[in-house]
Amino acid sequence: MPFPKLLFVLLLVSSHLTALATAPAPRPLPITRIDPTFWWVGMKNPQLQLLVHGPGIASSQVQLATYEGVTLDGFQKLESPNYLLVNLTISPTARPGKLKLEFKGAKKATYEYELRQRTTPGDKTKVQGISSADFIYLLMPDRFANGDPSNDVVKGNRAPGLARDSMYARHGGDLRGIEQHFDYLKDLGVTAIWPTPVVDNNMPRTGYHGYALTDYYQVDPHYGTNEDYVRFVQRAHQQGLKVIHDVVLNHIGSYHYLWLDQPAKDWFHQWPQFTRGNYRNGTVNDPHGAAQDRTLFSTTWFDTTMPDLAQENPLVATYLIQNFLWWVEYTGLDGYRVDTYTYSDPGFLMQWGQAILAEYPQLGMFGETWMQETEGVAQQAFWTRNVFPPVGGFKSNLPGAIDFILRQALLESLTKPTGYAEGVAKLYYAVQGDWMYEDASRNVIFLDNHDVDRVFSVLGEDVRKQKMALAWLLTERGIPQLYYGTEVLMKNFSRPDGLLREDFPGGWATDPKNAFTAAGRTPAQQDMHAYVRKLANYRKTHPVLQTGQLTHFIPEDGVYTYFRHDAQGRAVLVMLNCNATAKTVSLQRFAERLQGYTSAQDVLTDAVVPNLQTANVPAYTALVWELR
Amino acid sequence: MPFPKLLFVLLLVSSHLTALATAPAPRPLPITRIDPTFWWVGMKNPQLQLLVHGPGIASSQVQLATYEGVTLDGFQKLESPNYLLVNLTISPTARPGKLKLEFKGAKKATYEYELRQRTTPGDKTKVQGISSADFIYLLMPDRFANGDPSNDVVKGNRAPGLARDSMYARHGGDLRGIEQHFDYLKDLGVTAIWPTPVVDNNMPRTGYHGYALTDYYQVDPHYGTNEDYVRFVQRAHQQGLKVIHDVVLNHIGSYHYLWLDQPAKDWFHQWPQFTRGNYRNGTVNDPHGAAQDRTLFSTTWFDTTMPDLAQENPLVATYLIQNFLWWVEYTGLDGYRVDTYTYSDPGFLMQWGQAILAEYPQLGMFGETWMQETEGVAQQAFWTRNVFPPVGGFKSNLPGAIDFILRQALLESLTKPTGYAEGVAKLYYAVQGDWMYEDASRNVIFLDNHDVDRVFSVLGEDVRKQKMALAWLLTERGIPQLYYGTEVLMKNFSRPDGLLREDFPGGWATDPKNAFTAAGRTPAQQDMHAYVRKLANYRKTHPVLQTGQLTHFIPEDGVYTYFRHDAQGRAVLVMLNCNATAKTVSLQRFAERLQGYTSAQDVLTDAVVPNLQTANVPAYTALVWELR
Repeated sequence: MPFPKLLFVLLLVSSHLTALATAPAPRPLPITRIDPTFWWVGMKNPQLQLLVHGPGIASSQVQLATYEGVTLDGFQKLESPNYLLVNLTISPTARPGKLKLEFKGAKKATYEYELRQRTTPGDKTKVQGISSADFIYLLMPDRFANGDPSNDVVKGNRAPGLARDSMYARHGGDLRGIEQHFDYLKDLGVTAIWPTPVVDNNMPRTGYHGYALTDYYQVDPHYGTNEDYVRFVQRAHQQGLKVIHDVVLNHIGSYHYLWLDQPAKDWFHQWPQFTRGNYRNGTVNDPHGAAQDRTLFSTTWFDTTMPDLAQENPLVATYLIQNFLWWVEYTGLDGYRVDTYTYSDPGFLMQWGQAILAEYPQLGMFGETWMQETEGVAQQAFWTRNVFPPVGGFKSNLPGAIDFILRQALLESLTKPTGYAEGVAKLYYAVQGDWMYEDASRNVIFLDNHDVDRVFSVLGEDVRKQKMALAWLLTERGIPQLYYGTEVLMKNFSRPDGLLREDFPGGWATDPKNAFTAAGRTPAQQDMHAYVRKLANYRKTHPVLQTGQLTHFIPEDGVYTYFRHDAQGRAVLVMLNCNATAKTVSLQRFAERLQGYTSAQDVLTDAVVPNLQTANVPAYTALVWELR
Repeated sequence: MPFPKLLFVLLLVSSHLTALATAPAPRPLPITRIDPTFWWVGMKNPQLQLLVHGPGIASSQVQLATYEGVTLDGFQKLESPNYLLVNLTISPTARPGKLKLEFKGAKKATYEYELRQRTTPGDKTKVQGISSADFIYLLMPDRFANGDPSNDVVKGNRAPGLARDSMYARHGGDLRGIEQHFDYLKDLGVTAIWPTPVVDNNMPRTGYHGYALTDYYQVDPHYGTNEDYVRFVQRAHQQGLKVIHDVVLNHIGSYHYLWLDQPAKDWFHQWPQFTRGNYRNGTVNDPHGAAQDRTLFSTTWFDTTMPDLAQENPLVATYLIQNFLWWVEYTGLDGYRVDTYTYSDPGFLMQWGQAILAEYPQLGMFGETWMQETEGVAQQAFWTRNVFPPVGGFKSNLPGAIDFILRQALLESLTKPTGYAEGVAKLYYAVQGDWMYEDASRNVIFLDNHDVDRVFSVLGEDVRKQKMALAWLLTERGIPQLYYGTEVLMKNFSRPDGLLREDFPGGWATDPKNAFTAAGRTPAQQDMHAYVRKLANYRKTHPVLQTGQLTHFIPEDGVYTYFRHDAQGRAVLVMLNCNATAKTVSLQRFAERLQGYTSAQDVLTDAVVPNLQTANVPAYTALVWELR
């Protein structure tokens, strides 16, 4: 049976199916699924395009039983006999209920399609958005905590079961595991959770990472049901935590039903044989770029198991856009983190962003715009809302980037000697480049994530440097994001063994140590945890660090000084000493930002700083002073 | 005598002065000079502001004797008693002649101010402009060739005389010396000469470099007279060579008459004591920049002997703008190279560029926008005509940058190992950034100049690498610029001894070797000279390398391949092998640019390439193939 997944789906959706009453004798139901699986009345865009799947369904004629406010605009065959597209218009006056869609032809069926009442517009606990007031905690659901051992092994799933000793197998973490640690996260100062994708990845290997999705409309059963996810978001909101939904636009897993039974060849970028892409997003806006290089970036598969979607096909675009409206309306999630953002078709990206933000203007949205320093701030800004005019017709509407450039610069500050343009000067120049963004404070800033070496390892396991990095993270402009476990000194490099995705200690009942509790942390872990907790909670209660203006000064002698300040007279000084020796710094050159203040309180030590003449900064240390 | 310069100037301008006929007795002439020293009828801008200098002149009333088409709009005192500004309007109908300006008061004088006939609009040999069709030869007049020993020592000048063994003293080169080698330059394939500034630098030390000017209206007498310079441009044009005039907008030498006898304090940025600037042009457009950092960039002196002009003062702006119109109209020069472009007041830069280009739209113009790689292409593009909207009110109108970013990237290609974003990938990405320029082909590209290490030294005196660099220079988009002597393997680093500004061998009659002649060159020098000559002359006669479109491919395996091609079907392939080993490269991936061609001719060896299947590129070698 090459398509076990289809059978599984069929079971799930069978409750929506009603055998045609007039059918002379029982026969196989022709409709296996319809996407979106349900919809709402009252959406701003009244159009809805249903993708109906069923063996031989393409030969059917479609009729809609009378339903006030809903019209059937037509239906459309695709290349495959197993699909039909059905176009509906749902007027603002339509009421919730069930549309009766009748499919007539060689095979007949009636499908009751559900229209629900929208809830997000009136409910302020839903779709709260993500801003620089937040502090994001990025975790991998499979690796954080196992709250429900009953879903560790899913019957019929392609995943071969648990193997906690393998970095590429499932470990058993789930939504309930995260929920059980909402208190831990709140206490740490976190305000938003970003789990790597929770959508089904029914793949024989490495489905744990979530980026090879096999069903656009289904939560991975290893994590819970769709309903569990809705409750997860609700409970998070009740606890003052927001939820970011991690999505992939350009590729799917090779066991996705749309790939196994393709609507049409032109729904995917197809190559005679697997062709490795060049991973160079610069090809998109290169005025001198070879056409072949651009093709090899934009239309190749991300990996052998990840078919690339032909988003320039308007039918594919509509399918995707509706899915991402669906998740917001269904769950009330607060923001989208968009994986491999630059790999999507540029025209589609514009259309997708416009459609999502038209429906949910408050939704948070930031994209993975992975960038090397050499590619530059401009290239990163190119993929976001920026000051540039359209280039080749592309004008991004992505509010913020995941700021890879700033991360590289920060790490260089802490690992390379300072020069005119080296070491901490890189950080200064990366921030200087903010003039290219419409609003750089919408960028997500970070020290590491699930794809790159953990920061503690990059910094040579130097606790002083990691604290500096964290002080920067929580005081720099932008939306800070912490990768799970950094607060308890989790470490390791991305290669060769993937250990940067190790389980959080204490997330499994059998774990010998539980770093979720103070008692379970080593003194070093406790020290780092307390550092994050202190600063994150200070940030949480001090808007000047969230939305205050940033003013920085040219680094001198390896010391970089900046201020966050606001119109209400609140101000915080941050001084990063990127030297292996202590420095005494005269504060005279910062006079323009010290005016009106006479003393300070050290936010990290609570010590009072009696005057603002000089600052003594130990080697590899960050000062964070609230000015008074 | 603290002001010997003033006496000297007085002697020069005395021929223009006429003692007031009605003066009862001889007394000192009150007018020592008027800037501009003369003007023209028929300029597009009818306004003219004269800066009149003379002891006590400020107490005078000014009258203009009737002159058809010219009106006196008023006059204006400055802080100093020794200056008067006189505002005139010269209507399009005015005729050449001499205006009689009468100064009445405690002191009286009549000044006959000359209005000449414009010549540049009708004379196509003048103001030809500089474009990517050119090949620029940058030289230092003091260090290239001594054609007139009679001006080696200038009587009364502050320079202490010749000292060819000192890199910081005058060596005796001059305009006539350059003229004597026009044939050499033409033969090499050069089409434009850029001498470092020829304007007077009457400074006790290091006036040889030309960037501490002491008179806006006078050629340095060590190089020749103003009339010699006019003839120099004429003769160059007759020989098919253009002339680029190197100018400084933001600073002057501390022996400039305007500094020694200041019109007003607010003509200069004055500091209680010398304050070293930060040299960070990023402060100008940094949305987070400290005000103090910007002040320390924009208003500090470039060096202890270089007062900084307050160009935001409209009177200073007018003085400068008129001077740079004057030089074009007077000499017919073809382009301005603008020193320390980013240091000028941004508002002034806009005004200056607009005024110059309004009068001479065809004038070539490119600026020194010295940039570290870390600052990025965007920052370099910020200072030129670009795709950005105004930032802080600044929108550059400079047609092209001196492309420091591209130079660094090229050098990295030849000195660092290749990686995803390292080595030759830097070059690829620097070119990718062209999307930010209005037209990157207006950038001047170069390997070295009078301020940076000579390329032969940077490349470890590896002849192969220098040839690659030259092949790139003469095939890349932009306006190539060679620094004098690179063609004969001149070398040395900028520090500590300034030997990168050594004399061209053979420029002095007593030189033991004369590299201007084949007989005087060593075999190695001859080999490099022949390489430049061959490729530069090929470029000169093949427009595809001047204006053809550039298409490049992502470097692979340390080999970077690009094409210049045009609508007429002409195409040149360039392949840079940045490896220490030979490479055999399949040409299949370049199919989109090879279509329609079946063979090629190697431009450098004249060998025929019978088919376009593969290319064999020796280690550190550039292929340049004309496709057929």
